[in-house]
Amino acid sequence: MTNNIIITISRQYGSGGRLIGEKLAGKLGIPFYDKELITMAAEQSGFSREIFERMDERASSSLLYTLSLNPGMAGGMTGMMDLPLNDKVFLIQNNIIKQLADKGSCVIVGRCADYILKDRSDCVNVFICSDMADRIKRITEVYGMSLTNAEREIQKYDKRRANYYNFYTHTKWGIATNYDLCLNSGIIGIDASVEVIRAYVEGRDRFEGRPAR
Amino acid sequence: MTNNIIITISRQYGSGGRLIGEKLAGKLGIPFYDKELITMAAEQSGFSREIFERMDERASSSLLYTLSLNPGMAGGMTGMMDLPLNDKVFLIQNNIIKQLADKGSCVIVGRCADYILKDRSDCVNVFICSDMADRIKRITEVYGMSLTNAEREIQKYDKRRANYYNFYTHTKWGIATNYDLCLNSGIIGIDASVEVIRAYVEGRDRFEGRPAR
Repeated sequence: MTNNIIITISRQYGSGGRLIGEKLAGKLGIPFYDKELITMAAEQSGFSREIFERMDERASSSLLYTLSLNPGMAGGMTGMMDLPLNDKVFLIQNNIIKQLADKGSCVIVGRCADYILKDRSDCVNVFICSDMADRIKRITEVYGMSLTNAEREIQKYDKRRANYYNFYTHTKWGIATNYDLCLNSGIIGIDASVEVIRAYVEGRDRFEGRPAR
Repeated sequence: MTNNIIITISRQYGSGGRLIGEKLAGKLGIPFYDKELITMAAEQSGFSREIFERMDERASSSLLYTLSLNPGMAGGMTGMMDLPLNDKVFLIQNNIIKQLADKGSCVIVGRCADYILKDRSDCVNVFICSDMADRIKRITEVYGMSLTNAEREIQKYDKRRANYYNFYTHTKWGIATNYDLCLNSGIIGIDASVEVIRAYVEGRDRFEGRPAR
C-alpha cells in the first residue's frame, strides 16, 4: 500500500465487523480505532468516559437531558453549550475522527466516520453484514450471550446504529451506494473478509483511472 | 474453485457490471449469461426475440396489453395465458435462469437472478454500483452516449431496474443486506472489481464454517 488510506467500517451487530477491522489494520500495519475513540473523546473533552460509553452511537432525543458544561472546559466546544448531550458527544467524536484521519492511514469502526470524512479523497468506506442465523451463532458462541435473547439483542443494537447513522447523516445505513464495499462476512468468515477488503484497497491503490473524489 | 457456484450480478447502469461479470466468468472458466438469456427465452417460448428485448427488465404495468398466446405454443406455460406480457416474460426468464443454475457453475447478470435462485445454497449475489460522475464518464466514453443526456439516461435505466427488481422480489434493489457483496467499481476499475469478487468466491469456497443456506 503506497497511498494514505482511511478505512471506515460500518457493521451490523454480530457480524464480526470490529474484529475484521482490527485484523485488517494489523495486516496493513496501521492504527485501529473503535472503543479507543471513547477514551480519546473523554480525555479531550473533559466529560467522563462513562458519558461516552452510555451515549456511544445513540441518536439524539428530545427526552435526553442537556449536560451543563463548564464553559472553561473542553476547548473548542464553545457554542455547543445548549445542545443535547448526544449531539455534544457526536461533535466531540466528529472532531477526533477528523484529527485521526489528518494524522495518516487508519481503520475507524462505526460512529458515522464515513459521513464525517466524506470530503476526503482517501477513504474507503466498508459495510459488514451477516445473516441473522450467523450473527446469532456468533454472539452466543463468541460473546457468550443467551440464545433466548440473541435475536432481540441484535435487532435492538442494529436499530440503534441505524437510528444514529440516519439521524446524523441524513442518509440511510446499509444502502449499498453509501459505501465503496459491502460484504456478508458470515458466508466467508473473518479472515477472508479481511482479504476481500485488502483486495479492494490494493485495487484502489493501483487504479490509475481512480477519480479524485 | 472446487465447489459449484452461481454468481448473480445486479448492477447500476454504467457501472461496468456486465463487463465485470463477463471477465469474471472468463477467469473462472464458467458460462456467462446476460443478453444470452433473451435469445434462450425467445427460443424456448415461441415468443419473438423482439418482445423479450422490449420487455427486458421492465416491471409489469396494468396498461400493458396481454399477448394472446396460442395455447399450443410455449410448452409448460399453461396457466400464464391471462397474465400481462411482462409477467409472462419474467416467468419464462425465471424458468430459464433456474435451468441454467441446475446445469452448473455460471455468472448471470440482472433479471432478479439473486431472488429467483434464493433457495439454492450455491449462489453468491453481487451488486455493482459506481458514482454518477464515473458512470457518466463510462457511458459517454465506452457507449459513446451524448454528455447532455447521460445523467438522465442513467437515472432512467436505474429507475427501471429498481422498479423491476422491487416489483418481482418484494424487496429493495441496492440494499446491502440483499447481497453477499456490493462494490463501487468506479474507485478500483473493472479488473480489480473482478479480483475482489474472485477473492470473495474463493474465500467462500475455503470457509469451513460456511452456513448451508
